[in-house]
Amino acid sequence: MIRDLAATSLEMLAVFDDDALVAAALAFEAALAKAQAEHGLIPAAHAEIIAAACTGPVDTDALAFEAAHAGTLAIPLVKRLREAVGAEAAKSVHLGATSQDVADTALSLQGQEAVDLIERDGAALMAGLLRLAETHAATPMLGRTLLQGALPITFGLKASSWLLGVDNAMQRLGIEAGDALALQFGGAAGTLAGLDGKGRDVAETMAETLDLHLPPTPWHSRRDAIAGLGSALAILIGAIGKIARDLSLLAQGEVAEAFEPRVDGRGGSSAMAHKRNPTGCQVALAAAARAPQLAASLIAALPQEHERGLGGWQAEAPVLIELFKLAHGSLAAMVPVIAGLEVDTAAMARNLAAAKVGDDVGEAEAMVAMALAAFEADLEPDA
Amino acid sequence: MIRDLAATSLEMLAVFDDDALVAAALAFEAALAKAQAEHGLIPAAHAEIIAAACTGPVDTDALAFEAAHAGTLAIPLVKRLREAVGAEAAKSVHLGATSQDVADTALSLQGQEAVDLIERDGAALMAGLLRLAETHAATPMLGRTLLQGALPITFGLKASSWLLGVDNAMQRLGIEAGDALALQFGGAAGTLAGLDGKGRDVAETMAETLDLHLPPTPWHSRRDAIAGLGSALAILIGAIGKIARDLSLLAQGEVAEAFEPRVDGRGGSSAMAHKRNPTGCQVALAAAARAPQLAASLIAALPQEHERGLGGWQAEAPVLIELFKLAHGSLAAMVPVIAGLEVDTAAMARNLAAAKVGDDVGEAEAMVAMALAAFEADLEPDA
Amino acid sequence: MIRDLAATSLEMLAVFDDDALVAAALAFEAALAKAQAEHGLIPAAHAEIIAAACTGPVDTDALAFEAAHAGTLAIPLVKRLREAVGAEAAKSVHLGATSQDVADTALSLQGQEAVDLIERDGAALMAGLLRLAETHAATPMLGRTLLQGALPITFGLKASSWLLGVDNAMQRLGIEAGDALALQFGGAAGTLAGLDGKGRDVAETMAETLDLHLPPTPWHSRRDAIAGLGSALAILIGAIGKIARDLSLLAQGEVAEAFEPRVDGRGGSSAMAHKRNPTGCQVALAAAARAPQLAASLIAALPQEHERGLGGWQAEAPVLIELFKLAHGSLAAMVPVIAGLEVDTAAMARNLAAAKVGDDVGEAEAMVAMALAAFEADLEPDA
Amino acid sequence: MIRDLAATSLEMLAVFDDDALVAAALAFEAALAKAQAEHGLIPAAHAEIIAAACTGPVDTDALAFEAAHAGTLAIPLVKRLREAVGAEAAKSVHLGATSQDVADTALSLQGQEAVDLIERDGAALMAGLLRLAETHAATPMLGRTLLQGALPITFGLKASSWLLGVDNAMQRLGIEAGDALALQFGGAAGTLAGLDGKGRDVAETMAETLDLHLPPTPWHSRRDAIAGLGSALAILIGAIGKIARDLSLLAQGEVAEAFEPRVDGRGGSSAMAHKRNPTGCQVALAAAARAPQLAASLIAALPQEHERGLGGWQAEAPVLIELFKLAHGSLAAMVPVIAGLEVDTAAMARNLAAAKVGDDVGEAEAMVAMALAAFEADLEPDA
Repeated sequence: MIRDLAATSLEMLAVFDDDALVAAALAFEAALAKAQAEHGLIPAAHAEIIAAACTGPVDTDALAFEAAHAGTLAIPLVKRLREAVGAEAAKSVHLGATSQDVADTALSLQGQEAVDLIERDGAALMAGLLRLAETHAATPMLGRTLLQGALPITFGLKASSWLLGVDNAMQRLGIEAGDALALQFGGAAGTLAGLDGKGRDVAETMAETLDLHLPPTPWHSRRDAIAGLGSALAILIGAIGKIARDLSLLAQGEVAEAFEPRVDGRGGSSAMAHKRNPTGCQVALAAAARAPQLAASLIAALPQEHERGLGGWQAEAPVLIELFKLAHGSLAAMVPVIAGLEVDTAAMARNLAAAKVGDDVGEAEAMVAMALAAFEADLEPDA
Repeated sequence: MIRDLAATSLEMLAVFDDDALVAAALAFEAALAKAQAEHGLIPAAHAEIIAAACTGPVDTDALAFEAAHAGTLAIPLVKRLREAVGAEAAKSVHLGATSQDVADTALSLQGQEAVDLIERDGAALMAGLLRLAETHAATPMLGRTLLQGALPITFGLKASSWLLGVDNAMQRLGIEAGDALALQFGGAAGTLAGLDGKGRDVAETMAETLDLHLPPTPWHSRRDAIAGLGSALAILIGAIGKIARDLSLLAQGEVAEAFEPRVDGRGGSSAMAHKRNPTGCQVALAAAARAPQLAASLIAALPQEHERGLGGWQAEAPVLIELFKLAHGSLAAMVPVIAGLEVDTAAMARNLAAAKVGDDVGEAEAMVAMALAAFEADLEPDA
Repeated sequence: MIRDLAATSLEMLAVFDDDALVAAALAFEAALAKAQAEHGLIPAAHAEIIAAACTGPVDTDALAFEAAHAGTLAIPLVKRLREAVGAEAAKSVHLGATSQDVADTALSLQGQEAVDLIERDGAALMAGLLRLAETHAATPMLGRTLLQGALPITFGLKASSWLLGVDNAMQRLGIEAGDALALQFGGAAGTLAGLDGKGRDVAETMAETLDLHLPPTPWHSRRDAIAGLGSALAILIGAIGKIARDLSLLAQGEVAEAFEPRVDGRGGSSAMAHKRNPTGCQVALAAAARAPQLAASLIAALPQEHERGLGGWQAEAPVLIELFKLAHGSLAAMVPVIAGLEVDTAAMARNLAAAKVGDDVGEAEAMVAMALAAFEADLEPDA
Repeated sequence: MIRDLAATSLEMLAVFDDDALVAAALAFEAALAKAQAEHGLIPAAHAEIIAAACTGPVDTDALAFEAAHAGTLAIPLVKRLREAVGAEAAKSVHLGATSQDVADTALSLQGQEAVDLIERDGAALMAGLLRLAETHAATPMLGRTLLQGALPITFGLKASSWLLGVDNAMQRLGIEAGDALALQFGGAAGTLAGLDGKGRDVAETMAETLDLHLPPTPWHSRRDAIAGLGSALAILIGAIGKIARDLSLLAQGEVAEAFEPRVDGRGGSSAMAHKRNPTGCQVALAAAARAPQLAASLIAALPQEHERGLGGWQAEAPVLIELFKLAHGSLAAMVPVIAGLEVDTAAMARNLAAAKVGDDVGEAEAMVAMALAAFEADLEPDA
């Protein structure tokens, strides 16, 4: 857990731990039974027995070994569930479903909780950036290009561009998550065979129960939405990484224009008492160093074989989860940094003066206003 | 050109050749002068002289060396332009603009032509897939999962999933391209300084002239849209690669269910006269092997320094261009493959019978209909 | 653990769990104190007290939170160690060392155990491949190129090429691991300051104690060897993935030339009793889909800032560990597959005959002999 | 060419242009004929006619279209060669060879010229770094960690670590290039069929003629060495990128400790006359942003199908070439930067004093000596 917590939050670890995975997989089985009872495919009494069994305790460690041996979680999980419900109801368990239906839907359910956390803290980050942009709309500082002093800007202009970057990334994430976090229900070859022609109806009921998107047909080997979601997460991490890059440069001793807030026991050095390391930026930059390649893994997995592939989709879940973890770790690290950012406007003025590039900030203030208006338009519910 | 043409089309090579780049860069300068004249920043006569000079011939090879030496194309290009227009009008050239304004806008202009090619051939590919799905909605074949025979499907169900994959990817591409292919005009530090408060007006006029999107503020170091566009291109390439993966597996001698069309002189072997290689699939699969990592490069470039970064945005253009090239190469290879695909329904029936998995295709036909309805809804202009 | 065990072994999980990390970090502190006592920098009695304290129990969960808060493990770990040894000896704890010294060395120590596991099972895989190559040196089968039947080969030729691929990868891994798994000891800025000019002597003693390589100078921000090791691991995973690719194609129902061994409860389907999925190949192919991008993350992290960077090296450990896990997961999955591979030579003969490409296997047998001779030469201790 | 020259050298462009590719492919055919004549497989007169024809002019543009149509360069090239030599000798052209034999060997031949350029300029870079390390072995400056001032170092210690990074990378490159740049000759399925049992002898003679490594068996689908070479190039680019990262940070106006040499017309700004951009660093950092993902593409291509794959190896050549181009572009940009680096030791002293961290540089000087000794040991011919 030491290395996990260095990169993500305890909350996000909980979203993807074994208990949560098993609960999500069992939520699939319960919703399946419920929908099948509703459409007359299994007795209502079976659905109730199954639903009850789906809330019971599970020895996840034993299950882990069984799943690794079987090659998929669904096999031992369904076996246990069948044993739990008795021989009669057992016939109604997992009816017409395949392992990947469980795996994909469970990931979608966990993914929704993950997105909720990210949206909560993304909003907090944007609120902090908004305040910075407003407060410093007219605060002059040196603009820097190609790592050289260029012309004056305002700190608010910089902060408003950070804000737009995060806002754009959050908008993209919302769209992609809406597509990707979907119900999977197609059965062994994705044809909904063996369900008396009621497979699609069952799927629609399940999607409603689980509050998941339902694509026109099973997406067992059509994974563009997963790749799109992964890219969106990586772009969000990159947008936060951009803030961390700038702040870490501004916090350099020779520049000294902005600093992470002092937090007791954070950012120290095991060797140098005088140091105050930009630890939040460190987390965000480390995430930004890892995320792009994870997104690439998901895109690379697209050409999966036939109706359900070998190795491709099995590679996706751990990668997508890592992206969720890094995204939330990055947000959790940067929300307090932005909320408590120490801005030294005197140092900004001093460095600007030293650069001898005048004091014309052009249309910086007007642009801050445009950026904030655009951001606020995105907040509208019907945007 | 030998290795280029193995991966992309002559048309796409032309979109990104030196002449096109210089023309796009000069289109920026002409539009800038025109807009600045319109808003009273420079004399109208200067704008005319500049516009005229922007259509003249350019020694692109010499320019290449000068640009490499200077570290940016704009410097020698603007120098030449100033010389061409004479000392008076020279003062009105490139006024308030910076190198990256030219570079980004030129890439956007070239990118729009690239997207046009991709949309044209993407539509052709989807038309071919639609025909396949309709024709074979009820054609039974063996569904295969984890590279093992599973249950019956129909070939139309497979083709309709290919279609949805490409359709989703094209939709995403349209959205991302609309955001990313934008006017860049901010001046040295992105403040529109030195333009008498009319910078934003100038930008709006330019965006209209060049038919480009205009974000709320300059995006010199806010590159999420570029990363989003790159991801969308890579996902499209992956969606096409999925088709190529399946077809190449179906074309194996022992399976022999579908084949690329016979084209004289294509797919032969320098060593074996009997061979008929899936050359279109080869191009698409090679593209799918390269694209994900290119997208990752664009995402990795997000944390750029300050107002305009060092090395990050300079890395983007060649990578994005490579993605455009691979996307079109992939489409150009697969459009005729799908249009002329040889489908051996007898072999499909034979392999299905041999697998002894019955003939129940479940709700395959109904799902084809749902997929096609979803596709057609996406075609609606107001979708 | 469910998702972890789907991709790696219990053994490798243990190598990188919290207990192992803390033990490795404390081994650094103990070796440091021992070496400093030996070179007269601290009292011998302190070294003994420290060494004793370094074997005591640690609340790793609490430590995880403290480390996440501090931004580095060393700070809370050293604090606890100082408390454990008493005020006097506390002055001799972590003397002249910095957080990254601990982090890098601990990773090296864990990495060595990881490499041991990989070498053990790599040898087992190669032994299995050697047997296959010898047994089937003359077994004819259809050679396939561009996924089309080409000319006859022997199965031994194919197996011997698999063997050479793994052997080459193991050789590279040995070299890179020898360079990368090194002692780190340089202190805060890598100058060995505050050690009375005996810093290098201390480092040499520590390297000997811990049995680690010692580069000429601290490598806090010179990370080529880490990137080289990551690439070597990814290439190994790719070489194993190549075997899995071929086997999964040979196991297709229509080809049916080779199969993973039957193992009770493995490779089943939750939906289809008749299926026998290539589960070992699935694990290896999923690993091969993830590893390349992980290697890229390590290479991308190379341009780290100044003496010790921000975000770059902090990103490396989790990525390198993931590569170790995937490499061992891949080996653990494929060793039994190769050891128990079911080869259907009759099917090979049948498919070859059906392809009508004659029976000339060229110099296949002689090449098998050359491959095996090359492999055996690599086994020589002085090779 | 504008965008090409922004990233690489004219020399490297020439190594990989169409003329060079065709010349390399024809060198393969000539060497093949010569070796086959030597081993009695074809008449010596044919070999002479073929060798002569292999030096004739080729319409590379026409060939590009033919190759794209055929799906491989060898088919139209061999056709033209057969026409050129007349009907009799035509039978002796390309005997027993396959398209990939030509493609791989041609890439190896071009790769050797590329490596030569990189070794030439790598040596120049290291010579410059050596001078810096020697000159400034004792020059004090502020060491910086996590982008914060830490403790004193010497500039020579920093330069010597840069040197070791490049040296290590060059050593790795030499080893990997030696393995990867190999003769490919196996025929259609890699069995050397149809050559009367003399195939291996022919291969050995060819390897000698072309001065290429010869692995134990054909490596058509055993691509670890290609992936290893790609990784080595990317790591070299990263090691150079590390230097560029540090220099660009040192050149910041507020730090001002080191600057790229003034070169007339280089590093200017199209908008700001006062600027002096670190253009060499820009090229190196842009290369370092692209290279890691290119290496990943080569590793990802490892699991190629059967005897010769579909799409995998076809994806490799353009990627490997891009890595060669970026590596040389990076070197070409940084050799003059290091050779002419302006070091402001007074600014170093001033910043160090301002940081109030004393002046103890620990064992910095001794470590410079150790680093230089290690570097010089690597220069020994028998090292």
